[in-house]
Amino acid sequence: MKIVCTKSNLVKGVGIVSKAVPSKTTMPILECILIDASAEEIKLTANDMELGIETRIEGEIIERGIIALNAKIFSEIVRKLPDNDVVIETESDNQALITCEKAKFNIAAQSGDDFSYLPVIEKDDFITVTEFTLKEVIRQTIFSIADNDTNKMMTGELFEIEENILKVVSLDGHRISIRKIELKDSYDSKKVIVPGKTLQEISKIIGGEAEAEVDISFTKNHIVFEFDKTVVVSRLIEGEYFKIDQMLSSDYETKVKINKRELLDCIDRATLLIKEGDKKPIIIDIRDDSMELKIKSQIGSMDEEIFIAKEGKDLLIGFNPKFLIDALRVIDDEEVELYFMNAKAPCFIKDEAQSYIYLILPVNFSAVA
Amino acid sequence: MKIVCTKSNLVKGVGIVSKAVPSKTTMPILECILIDASAEEIKLTANDMELGIETRIEGEIIERGIIALNAKIFSEIVRKLPDNDVVIETESDNQALITCEKAKFNIAAQSGDDFSYLPVIEKDDFITVTEFTLKEVIRQTIFSIADNDTNKMMTGELFEIEENILKVVSLDGHRISIRKIELKDSYDSKKVIVPGKTLQEISKIIGGEAEAEVDISFTKNHIVFEFDKTVVVSRLIEGEYFKIDQMLSSDYETKVKINKRELLDCIDRATLLIKEGDKKPIIIDIRDDSMELKIKSQIGSMDEEIFIAKEGKDLLIGFNPKFLIDALRVIDDEEVELYFMNAKAPCFIKDEAQSYIYLILPVNFSAVA
Repeated sequence: MKIVCTKSNLVKGVGIVSKAVPSKTTMPILECILIDASAEEIKLTANDMELGIETRIEGEIIERGIIALNAKIFSEIVRKLPDNDVVIETESDNQALITCEKAKFNIAAQSGDDFSYLPVIEKDDFITVTEFTLKEVIRQTIFSIADNDTNKMMTGELFEIEENILKVVSLDGHRISIRKIELKDSYDSKKVIVPGKTLQEISKIIGGEAEAEVDISFTKNHIVFEFDKTVVVSRLIEGEYFKIDQMLSSDYETKVKINKRELLDCIDRATLLIKEGDKKPIIIDIRDDSMELKIKSQIGSMDEEIFIAKEGKDLLIGFNPKFLIDALRVIDDEEVELYFMNAKAPCFIKDEAQSYIYLILPVNFSAVA
Repeated sequence: MKIVCTKSNLVKGVGIVSKAVPSKTTMPILECILIDASAEEIKLTANDMELGIETRIEGEIIERGIIALNAKIFSEIVRKLPDNDVVIETESDNQALITCEKAKFNIAAQSGDDFSYLPVIEKDDFITVTEFTLKEVIRQTIFSIADNDTNKMMTGELFEIEENILKVVSLDGHRISIRKIELKDSYDSKKVIVPGKTLQEISKIIGGEAEAEVDISFTKNHIVFEFDKTVVVSRLIEGEYFKIDQMLSSDYETKVKINKRELLDCIDRATLLIKEGDKKPIIIDIRDDSMELKIKSQIGSMDEEIFIAKEGKDLLIGFNPKFLIDALRVIDDEEVELYFMNAKAPCFIKDEAQSYIYLILPVNFSAVA
């Protein structure tokens, strides 16, 4: 094999597929990026068997062939090369030569025979969203997946399509995040659970432009994202997702309208007084025109008042401040509305159209206040 | 005590003195910042007994007094307050109240009675350099101090004044860095060893403007830096510094003139192939119009040619690539000149005026090449 392409194209391509290279594996071939120049195009592929990414890069094929290179070494070399044309060629069975201007690198290579290509997916039906929307939806829900594997389902996100609505849901046992977006067309109903890791990596790869589009298609076991010159294939998490509808209620006894920035800054300040792992709640005292936030720890105490517009009853309620911060950070509205039932029922932060709903369980603070 | 000052003044002042707060100590009072508003001015002080920093901040003293606050908590609170006036007051013997807009923080405080003020220094004679120059000189030498304490002297830098020249020297047993700058006046001869940590912290505090000046004065055991509203006092390292003059030689057998950026980029690329802790040298093969750089490791091999202008003999010599990189990174010249005697003698990188001299010992590569 012998190919020529620009450093910048190579850096971009390697950066994309590297997201599917496992950081730890016992199979050396999985640590590789496959360069496939066996046909008309140069394709880079990485695949950790859960997540596989393939991207096409522009360049010239001088001699057709396939080669697998260690992803870490290859990407480091490519990034540090001069900004010019790069030649990659097979030197012998297990050696590759990378040349750029007067710099020559010789590194170990593998034939690629053992490499696992992406599964071939028959694309019948797909939905289309913009890169911007997909990136936003992930950012606005990904923080409330569970990061351990005790419940596999919680490490993923529900993607539910019903007519022209895509609903994305994540939950970790203390909170639920829901984002709904309108699609351009109507589709058959579909419910899949996408691994959180896949979504995190996708979010890093896509540019986030409002113009660029991503096609999302599904098979029984896979979800496929296609955009620009890249295809991302991920296994789905098997099983049936949690029934969340019964946890959502539109009744409330207290409704608060508040400036988001002020509330977020105040809670952020309060968390200074909490050391990592310390489970001090922030106590919220809702009265007619103002809300007092209080926190007390071994380090000291803090209280602050914020003006609000309130409907309904007064309320004293406690929360894990991190959960409020996580939700408030991803909401783009200047003002948010909080709905409460009582000090033991979940709080809802949602907009009128319910394009987002954040449910957060309160904490019992009777013993600590 | 009760004072009012703007958040931004407070953030700036706390940022400066925090550099003298030890990260680990058994004496809680050393973890504190002292706020001294007992006279006409508000002064912040921190002192870890080796390095002490005092800075004046603008503000209003409503009630005179002194208070010591935990530096970490105090600085975190201050940074997260709204951008407005901050009131700091003593609430009781061991409580301080920090108020800004509607946010109120209560934290533990100490009386300040146990606090170690900076030593009172009688300033007879001092030299003046610009912030820019001091920052540059530190940056251009600090990388070759030794970071462990087996030889205390190597953890500091020599500051030697002779007539109108300030010479700054650091060395770690493998290399020597020397920077000379011209002072505006002539001074009595002086030789002191300044702890590397002091210089690192000073370098973070000073702004680096070409206009602003720093006064540097000395006592038997201390060096004092004064600039803007800040005084930094540091203990000196006792003893006599290494005699470096006998290690410097101006004879050479080979002289190479080379583009600095090209050389640096090439060595930087080559180090990709070396894992942390692996002691592979970079082999430099100097011929008439070009220099070939080669490196070989378990990961692979690399070679690259660079055009040079050469005087004298051909030479094959090996170096620890990191040492070359460290020196080249801090040289601002576009072209550098390298002087060699033979493969076992040190290489010198220096400019004609000898405003900088970097001596680097070669490594023996016969066994590894």
